[in-house]
Amino acid sequence: MILTFTDFGMAGPYLGQVEMVLHRLAPGVPVVHLLADAPPFKPRGDAYLLAALAHDAPRDSVFLGVVDPGVGGAREPVIVRAGDYWYIGPDNGLFEVVAARGGDARWWRIAWRPERLSASFHGRDLFAPVAARLAMGEDAIAAGGEAMQHPPADFPADLAEIVYIDHYGNAATGIRGVAAPPGATLHAGEHAVRPAATFSAAPAGEVFWYVNSNGLVEIAANQTSAAELLHLKVGDTVSWKM
Amino acid sequence: MILTFTDFGMAGPYLGQVEMVLHRLAPGVPVVHLLADAPPFKPRGDAYLLAALAHDAPRDSVFLGVVDPGVGGAREPVIVRAGDYWYIGPDNGLFEVVAARGGDARWWRIAWRPERLSASFHGRDLFAPVAARLAMGEDAIAAGGEAMQHPPADFPADLAEIVYIDHYGNAATGIRGVAAPPGATLHAGEHAVRPAATFSAAPAGEVFWYVNSNGLVEIAANQTSAAELLHLKVGDTVSWKM
Amino acid sequence: MILTFTDFGMAGPYLGQVEMVLHRLAPGVPVVHLLADAPPFKPRGDAYLLAALAHDAPRDSVFLGVVDPGVGGAREPVIVRAGDYWYIGPDNGLFEVVAARGGDARWWRIAWRPERLSASFHGRDLFAPVAARLAMGEDAIAAGGEAMQHPPADFPADLAEIVYIDHYGNAATGIRGVAAPPGATLHAGEHAVRPAATFSAAPAGEVFWYVNSNGLVEIAANQTSAAELLHLKVGDTVSWKM
Repeated sequence: MILTFTDFGMAGPYLGQVEMVLHRLAPGVPVVHLLADAPPFKPRGDAYLLAALAHDAPRDSVFLGVVDPGVGGAREPVIVRAGDYWYIGPDNGLFEVVAARGGDARWWRIAWRPERLSASFHGRDLFAPVAARLAMGEDAIAAGGEAMQHPPADFPADLAEIVYIDHYGNAATGIRGVAAPPGATLHAGEHAVRPAATFSAAPAGEVFWYVNSNGLVEIAANQTSAAELLHLKVGDTVSWKM
Repeated sequence: MILTFTDFGMAGPYLGQVEMVLHRLAPGVPVVHLLADAPPFKPRGDAYLLAALAHDAPRDSVFLGVVDPGVGGAREPVIVRAGDYWYIGPDNGLFEVVAARGGDARWWRIAWRPERLSASFHGRDLFAPVAARLAMGEDAIAAGGEAMQHPPADFPADLAEIVYIDHYGNAATGIRGVAAPPGATLHAGEHAVRPAATFSAAPAGEVFWYVNSNGLVEIAANQTSAAELLHLKVGDTVSWKM
Repeated sequence: MILTFTDFGMAGPYLGQVEMVLHRLAPGVPVVHLLADAPPFKPRGDAYLLAALAHDAPRDSVFLGVVDPGVGGAREPVIVRAGDYWYIGPDNGLFEVVAARGGDARWWRIAWRPERLSASFHGRDLFAPVAARLAMGEDAIAAGGEAMQHPPADFPADLAEIVYIDHYGNAATGIRGVAAPPGATLHAGEHAVRPAATFSAAPAGEVFWYVNSNGLVEIAANQTSAAELLHLKVGDTVSWKM
């Protein structure tokens, strides 16, 4: 299975072109668009989001992850093996969290180059063909990789920031539920947010935090938008008070 | 074939995670996202929309329908067999209209529980695995169901409300075209809307009603947004005047 | 492979219903949504966009293209063979550019009609079944076509207009990079836009033009929206100054 994690948007031409390449080069392999609205230009925060979403896929699934701080800047294209999965994309921080948590991660720089490589769309021209080869069972070297040393980046274990706001207005942080002090109050800007076990435990319209279905601490409100009520945006820092 | 009908949005992580589970557990079965922007929190209106969309799929297709009035509240997870199709989702009204129209509907409560069941994402954890089993040809009992009595709910045959506004600004009601008085004027708020046979029969910019391609009475305007012109929103009531 | 090019939007019911028909009638054929947010009501500009996107698909791929100037007006449904691909949709200008560039294009009017043909959704009822037949290997006559003469339309080789604005705010024109005077300044409204080789060659926030990954001249800005900065919209004309 190939799973995409991008800031490309669903409707526009980018994801469709990537999917076309994947189906052409990996016929019969299911392609799932796991996230198409990752916060753009923010690979560091998105790294925590990817790590929360990358579970329950079959062993050896391939995650094609593309979020860049800008377009066309210099960074290595890489393959990472961490836990049971492959990750393909830019070496800009996006894979640091899955690598740290997967234990014993291995990294390859992608040395292969396609005949035609556009300056602005490596997702389609470079990453998708490599992802297709891995999904067809080739190993990282056969898929175009060259083993590299990759010292772990200086990323915190959990990120005390808003990393994603969904279309209901729920705001997920980069903090895992297992790292949350039970019963603590979460501060976001001026606001002190109390915990609730589930949505239905909170009165309609009241803002609370809980551990979401992907294991992240999330600020939410039942039947309304917590992000609007509290003016939250991606990148805002949060902090605990006991 | 598995068809999803949800308020999850396409781009965010929810639909992708459901699709990942479906492909993992029902390999080779096509998954089609029939509607990802069902009006949220409105299972009653959405029931009429689902009934209008659930046709032309192959016999024994599985509709995974998830819209909840809130998140994590108490309601049974159910399997429904109505007409030629399976429906899986929450027992909150969403399947009342397909059940009433399908004739001789059968209901099962889902007794099976997964090892890990998040409080907030039954679509991925509970409904998707059951949908996958039905799509692989298992019967309702094997898929985790337990036969239940389900007296029909007190829903009108047609719903005189706006149930969906599409991205062109056309506003569909829960009234079937076969239940519309021919030539009658449809009132929505202050506005009296006259019928037209087709879009091209109305001058550009003029608001009219017609029977849409799914058989519902819809308020539309050629090349502009009827919903904006008339300030329509989902849940607004409409009425006929001869 | 079947690729859709429409203004239907991803989330709403239209694309899902088309996909359901395609999977039912062409089982096992991958369906890729190449573009779901083509500028609506603008088949002429969209023709240049389609021509830029229709490449790299496997030989004999089928492009289902639906954009109409209005809904339900009179135009022929057609099949076009141009280059290595099939195109199916309305004869309203949308296929003029692929036909002109493909060389030796052949046209068929679609004489076949389905049992049920809604007035407003030919994409699902008429074009999708024909696309499925072509994707299953039938020829144009077997798929319901009747050979027709189709004199080329009076379309310029390149269109000096904005034809698409993506969700980052980059504005693509209908001018191919090969037709751009090297080093020239592109004028859009009051604004004079200078060229840059790549995104990263321009300072953050500066507007520039470059040749995008599909070969079109595009106005962009690194990490911000060029369309917002310059108040660009689809249909705006542009011009070169040396």
